[in-house]
Amino acid sequence: MPHPNLDQISLANVLSVLGDQTRLAIVGYLACNEGLAVSCGQFSEFGSKTNLSYHLAKLREAGITHTEVAGTSRLISLRRADLDSRFPGLLDSIITAAQELPALERLRDEA
Amino acid sequence: MPHPNLDQISLANVLSVLGDQTRLAIVGYLACNEGLAVSCGQFSEFGSKTNLSYHLAKLREAGITHTEVAGTSRLISLRRADLDSRFPGLLDSIITAAQELPALERLRDEA
Repeated sequence: MPHPNLDQISLANVLSVLGDQTRLAIVGYLACNEGLAVSCGQFSEFGSKTNLSYHLAKLREAGITHTEVAGTSRLISLRRADLDSRFPGLLDSIITAAQELPALERLRDEA
Repeated sequence: MPHPNLDQISLANVLSVLGDQTRLAIVGYLACNEGLAVSCGQFSEFGSKTNLSYHLAKLREAGITHTEVAGTSRLISLRRADLDSRFPGLLDSIITAAQELPALERLRDEA
């Protein structure tokens, strides 16, 4: 799966891709589960399978997430070190603000 | 001119509107001139008059900037206090990252 190099990650593109409730919820969820391997099935709360494939591809192509193919599953993680080095403080401020999103609050209530 | 209230400012919308090179350059320029009244003519470097009107309206409608009509001119400023209270740290991290954009570097070289 193609991932952009560090110097190919653009601020405008990262912001544009994060400017979407579903993708913000995915990033917020990944941030809550950092260090764990999150498989794409765990995002089913956030949308249909087709929609999620689209959103996960957008996140990967913008350099926000890393996707690893593991058998029939895909393991997703945040590219935190890369984003922190390119745009210091950006990811943390977005993750903090994203915790208030209804989709993430609903998920926490169910847990 | 209509401006959203503080609680109408949405994270996804702010990020989506800032996910554009021209609008990032405008915000970076406003940040460099904070406390000064910046009239819309000062953005002419960043695009045509029609394009700029469009971009400035998007920024105002998302709650990122405040536009004041002064005679035949428009004075633009960042809604820094509002954005800082809604999304702590977000604006600063974006402004820092935006300083590297070619449009802003060009402007500084000419100054």
